This record gives sequence, structure tokens and C-alpha cells, in this order.
Amino acid sequence: MNPTIETILQHRSIRKFEDRPLSDEQIRTIVECAQAASTSSFIQAYSIIGVKDKEKKKKLAELAGNQSYVEHSGHFFVFCADLHRHEQIGEMEGTDVSGSLESMEKFMVAVIDASLAAQNASLAAESMGLGICYIGGIRNNMEQVTELLGIPSHAMPLFGLAVGYPAQQTDVKPRLPFEHVYQEDTYNTDETSYKEQLEDYNKTTSAYYHARTGGKRADTWSSQMANMLREPKRTGMKEFVEKQGLAKK
Amino acid sequence: MNPTIETILQHRSIRKFEDRPLSDEQIRTIVECAQAASTSSFIQAYSIIGVKDKEKKKKLAELAGNQSYVEHSGHFFVFCADLHRHEQIGEMEGTDVSGSLESMEKFMVAVIDASLAAQNASLAAESMGLGICYIGGIRNNMEQVTELLGIPSHAMPLFGLAVGYPAQQTDVKPRLPFEHVYQEDTYNTDETSYKEQLEDYNKTTSAYYHARTGGKRADTWSSQMANMLREPKRTGMKEFVEKQGLAKK
Repeated sequence: MNPTIETILQHRSIRKFEDRPLSDEQIRTIVECAQAASTSSFIQAYSIIGVKDKEKKKKLAELAGNQSYVEHSGHFFVFCADLHRHEQIGEMEGTDVSGSLESMEKFMVAVIDASLAAQNASLAAESMGLGICYIGGIRNNMEQVTELLGIPSHAMPLFGLAVGYPAQQTDVKPRLPFEHVYQEDTYNTDETSYKEQLEDYNKTTSAYYHARTGGKRADTWSSQMANMLREPKRTGMKEFVEKQGLAKK
Repeated sequence: MNPTIETILQHRSIRKFEDRPLSDEQIRTIVECAQAASTSSFIQAYSIIGVKDKEKKKKLAELAGNQSYVEHSGHFFVFCADLHRHEQIGEMEGTDVSGSLESMEKFMVAVIDASLAAQNASLAAESMGLGICYIGGIRNNMEQVTELLGIPSHAMPLFGLAVGYPAQQTDVKPRLPFEHVYQEDTYNTDETSYKEQLEDYNKTTSAYYHARTGGKRADTWSSQMANMLREPKRTGMKEFVEKQGLAKK
């Protein structure tokens, strides 16, 4: 096992950080690593906003559903899908690019680009001994986050990334069975084996929670997921995305 | 600079591979690394299909726009956004999860999850001395790719990942200026400095192409982008995504 694979396999989310900011050099390395990721046809359709302003961090922590580790992170990055610069390029080059920018295809490209960059950033941070936690919670309040950070048309915040010196130890969570996530040549549409794999995984997660909570909790993954998915969340997302000029057609 | 950061910064896409398949052990390590990535609220909303069947690889190469390195890769992975298993979980748990599964929010979660996993897979492969290339081209023919791989409702292919032993040397491409991609506290909406950064980058890319092609080519990034974005591509994407039961509301 090489050091990169070791870093990857040791990942666990960290939600408590030391009161110690990242240095500008650390921030630069993390961002440069983000930028080194693959990008669809060289489009580079993302931006990263690093939040240092204490009031803004506090506000973002609230908007993300009172996640204090947003405020008390060593640095808080917001990853944005960003086709705004391509809108500007259209102007610079006198080319009408609006049809492309408003397409579902380019929205997907921007979300994928931003995510590949973010995962590079995460691994770079973790390889330096820092801890990370993705913050989807900023999508609870898209309008406010977008306004707070001054994000223009054809761009939108996707998720935050809290980074800092870990002040807690957490466990690596067991993932879905390999055979369930990875299939060869064709998707497994055999319902029996498919559901058996999920039942097996339920035993794994149940044992994991049982051990971690001293027997207080032993819920299965499928019950967790069913509870989480019962009520649709962030129901205004489609309207918001389209209002930003993305995924309209 | 540690080995993980070194791996990250050395990335360049490889489009020519030795005729040498990946071992099952390599494939397993790559997938396990993919699975170790963060996942929104533990939802694990993606699947990976590894294509070994020679006829299918050939067909996928055609469907991706005759990209021969899809066929002649050491292994070809297809990363899928996948909420199909959550549909099955809804059945198992007797819970109506359809509203969640059809939401734009959960579509974004699935695309982000799949992308984080793919970037882990890419870095794991690169750290082992393998080369990679993301293949967005499979989105040229979504219906056929989906049918060929038997991908069910609430799931869809997003991109391929060709992996193999490199049979070419390529350069690291210069990225957008750090200051353009990374901003502090607020998005840079000062049009003058914003466009100056793009002009600077045009000089960088122009010099890069000039050097690489012995003076035959010296196009700027903004002209490349304007040309690429002039005509919308993959215009049926929104209909396709919605037909799969995703991003409908």
C-alpha cells in the first residue's frame, strides 16, 4: 500500500477542530491541488471561495443548520459550480454561448468539475495531517449563501469544505459491499442477490453502530436511508438552479 | 511536498495505453479507494460498472465518439449516479421515497458522490503508476450506453474512466491563475481585474500550445472555450435525466 492509497483509505470526517487557522501556504497548496484535477474539455467550470471573515463564517455555520465546526474550522472553503467566467468569455469573444451555459449537460459538467477539484483538495489536506468535513448543509439556504458570498449568474455554491487540525478521533465507517457498488459488464438487476447484499450490509452497519455506542444504537443502513428519504428536502433546488441560469434546458 | 500531493500535481490525462489489462487486485484496490470518499449523509448514491467484455468495450469506444483508448485501456470503469438502490430500500422498508429520489437536490447529491468517488479512484490508479482519462464522451449517447450496461431507473451513467499502463508521455496543462479560481470572502465581481486575469491566462495557454506544437498552434483559452460553447451539445440531456426519474422537481 502506497502513501496515497493509505491517505485515501484512512479518510473519516472530522467535525471538531483545534483553534488554529491554516497558513496561507497550506491554503495555496490545497487550492493548487484542487486545480490539478481533470476537467471536462479543459473547461475549468468551478470556483472556490475561502472564508476568513469571522462574521461570514459564523453566518455560514448558522445557514448550514448550526454546524459549529463551520465557524470553528481552520479554514472554510465553498466550492461553486461556475460558468460565469464562460459567460464573460462569450462577451470577450463576441460569441453567443448562452445556449450551452443554460444546458443540463454543462450544469452536470460544472458539478462534476467542482467535485473532482474538491476531492483533490480534501486528500491534499488529509495528507498534510489535517481533517476535513464536506458541508452539504449550505444548500439549506441557497439564496442567502449565494448573496452572502456575492456569487453571480451562471454560478452557484455546491458544498462547503471545513478543514482544520483535528481535535477528535473518529472511526472509518464501513461502506456498502464491494460487490454491490462494483459490477462487471452489466448492472445487477437480479433483485434477490441485490437485496441480499443490502441485508448483509444492514448487519455490518448495525454491528458498527452497536459497537460504537456501547449498544445504545444499532440501526440498519436501509432504515436510516428510508427515514432520511421519507420527506423530500431542499425542495426549492430546481427553481434555484434554474434561476441562476443553469440546467434550464 | 508529500507523496500524495506529488501524485495529485503530476496528473495529466493519458490517452494511449499498453495492451495489458489491470489485475483483479488492482481493480479491487481502485474501487475500495473510490468507496472511501466522503458521501452526503452516508447515502452512497453511485455505482461503478467495470467493463471487461471486449465487444462492450468496443461498442462504448464507438458511442463515446470513436475514442480508441476506451477500447484499448487496461480497464474501463463507468461511474453512475445511482439512487436505484434507494428505490429498492423504499420497497424493503415500506417507505415512499419517490419525492426525494426525483428531486434536483438528490440528483446533485448523486452526481457529487459519484465524482468524489471517481477522483479517489483516479488518484489511487495514478499512485500505482497507472494513467487515467475521464471519458465524458459516453454522454454523447446516453440511451445506448444506459441500455448496453443495463442501468435501471433512478440511475444513469455520468462518465467513463479509462485506466491502464501509460504508453505515452504527456504534459501537465497550465491551469487558470490561482487568484482567478480562488477568492477570499467574496466572489470577485470586479469586471476589470476579472477579465485581466483571463487575458493573462490566454498568454499562458497560447505560449503552452506554441511550445508543444513547435509553433503550429497558439490558440488562447478564451477562444477555445468560445468555440466549444458556441453550439449547445448533448441537448437531450435534461429529457434523458428526467426520463430516468431524476431532477424532475
